[in-house]
Amino acid sequence: MKLARLGPAGQERPVVVHDGKTYDLSGLAADIDGDFLASGGIATARAALEAGGLPEVADAASLRAGSPIARPGALLCIGMNYAEHAAESGSAPPEVPILFLKTPNTAGGPGDPVTIPPGSERTDWEVELGVVIGRRALYLESTSDSLAHVAGFVVANDVSERQFQLADSGGQWSKGKCSPGFSPLGPWLVTPDEVDHTRLRLRSWVNGEPRQDSTTADMIFGVEYLVWHLSQYLALEPGDVILTGTPQGVALSGKYPYLRPGDVVELEIEGLGRQRQEFVKAGVR
Amino acid sequence: MKLARLGPAGQERPVVVHDGKTYDLSGLAADIDGDFLASGGIATARAALEAGGLPEVADAASLRAGSPIARPGALLCIGMNYAEHAAESGSAPPEVPILFLKTPNTAGGPGDPVTIPPGSERTDWEVELGVVIGRRALYLESTSDSLAHVAGFVVANDVSERQFQLADSGGQWSKGKCSPGFSPLGPWLVTPDEVDHTRLRLRSWVNGEPRQDSTTADMIFGVEYLVWHLSQYLALEPGDVILTGTPQGVALSGKYPYLRPGDVVELEIEGLGRQRQEFVKAGVR
Repeated sequence: MKLARLGPAGQERPVVVHDGKTYDLSGLAADIDGDFLASGGIATARAALEAGGLPEVADAASLRAGSPIARPGALLCIGMNYAEHAAESGSAPPEVPILFLKTPNTAGGPGDPVTIPPGSERTDWEVELGVVIGRRALYLESTSDSLAHVAGFVVANDVSERQFQLADSGGQWSKGKCSPGFSPLGPWLVTPDEVDHTRLRLRSWVNGEPRQDSTTADMIFGVEYLVWHLSQYLALEPGDVILTGTPQGVALSGKYPYLRPGDVVELEIEGLGRQRQEFVKAGVR
Repeated sequence: MKLARLGPAGQERPVVVHDGKTYDLSGLAADIDGDFLASGGIATARAALEAGGLPEVADAASLRAGSPIARPGALLCIGMNYAEHAAESGSAPPEVPILFLKTPNTAGGPGDPVTIPPGSERTDWEVELGVVIGRRALYLESTSDSLAHVAGFVVANDVSERQFQLADSGGQWSKGKCSPGFSPLGPWLVTPDEVDHTRLRLRSWVNGEPRQDSTTADMIFGVEYLVWHLSQYLALEPGDVILTGTPQGVALSGKYPYLRPGDVVELEIEGLGRQRQEFVKAGVR
């Protein structure tokens, strides 16, 4: 099943996307958030869809898509999780998952314009598989327990400002990861039964030219391992999103220019949909 | 004015503490959170207190204190912000503020027991001045704008697991900062007019023996600078909390043992109140 949130920012309504049609969930759920996921919202939505009880949204194509998960409690990011990206960044592949965080207020819709921060010369793209937590996970016994805590998957752009992240930071990456709009998510939250998350092609383009083209099979640490591993250190909660790292092909490699106002970034993960963002100049302060 | 939240975890009610008495705010406000602060809640509470319109809470002394701010949107932490702590950690004083994040679900009450994570041998304390944001701050022009965005101050313990933070982390610190209960806040949210935040004595003890004893005057980057600086990189939002760094005197220095089950940590900041936490062994998984 594919869930989404459609409407102006802050006023999105929850929907199900199925067989090319869009159905309104707002009679069943206030929003798609941690409470919805924790209380069995996906099963409720699935039952209503199968029973034919959901009204169709006629004007879906004209509505803005928001992040398919409202107000993540935490945005947890894994760094250097593809060996060739570690190499292009000048690092050896990590021996353990590297965790850093983005502020939850960076989450945005998959088509929202992204502002290049004032003074930025090194704004970069990162297509990533996002994992949405559906059930609290703390001290899981085994990687085989992990998927029971996953509500689904999303496309994510882990937008990064490399000067802020690597030069102005004292070595801790979050300063270059939290500018407004730096975490476009969606278009859909796709339940695990719809895709094989261990081998999804993920790609990005800038102004139509290919940049990243890899597969989640190349992750150093896979989804099940990451959920298990993180749960040894913190409590993952419903509505949290794990960004699982980006493959090679970003501007940091030196092969491509950083983003400039007017550039259009597109990202796609097989079965999870496509994002398109125009990067825009910051307004007058 | 001093605001607090009293009651069982998840069921706290907002109160004002004034002249040794505790007054119930729940008739005026659902909770003390970002919405409360953004909508002028502190001014409303102050007016009601002055008008004598708030009922007293008779059993306040018997109630648990929660974090004085519910559900922070972000917990933003500054590393190495006291020169002698940087030295005891083996680092030079930073040239720019170092930002890392804790997950918001680590926030707890000032007297709640803190669980030493399973397998932890290096759980450490850090008394810190916490700054609660009251108004959105993005791209502030000047450090003189900063205080207008601050709702008040809290005592914070930035509990840290050094093996997770420094050895198991690949160099990014958040993995050692996010265990459940690792961010005790409070007892009070104290408005800026009540204290001179530029020179507050801050201290910690373990089992009654002194550990940290410093003053916020020794911060490398002060509160006004930090709010301005962070606002150049991200949007600070009402209810966010900035932990401004810890002074020398933690176990990481090698001078003191790490925490063991049964140890009691106390922390105090002049004018902001006192915390007391028993550190307890993790339960059976």
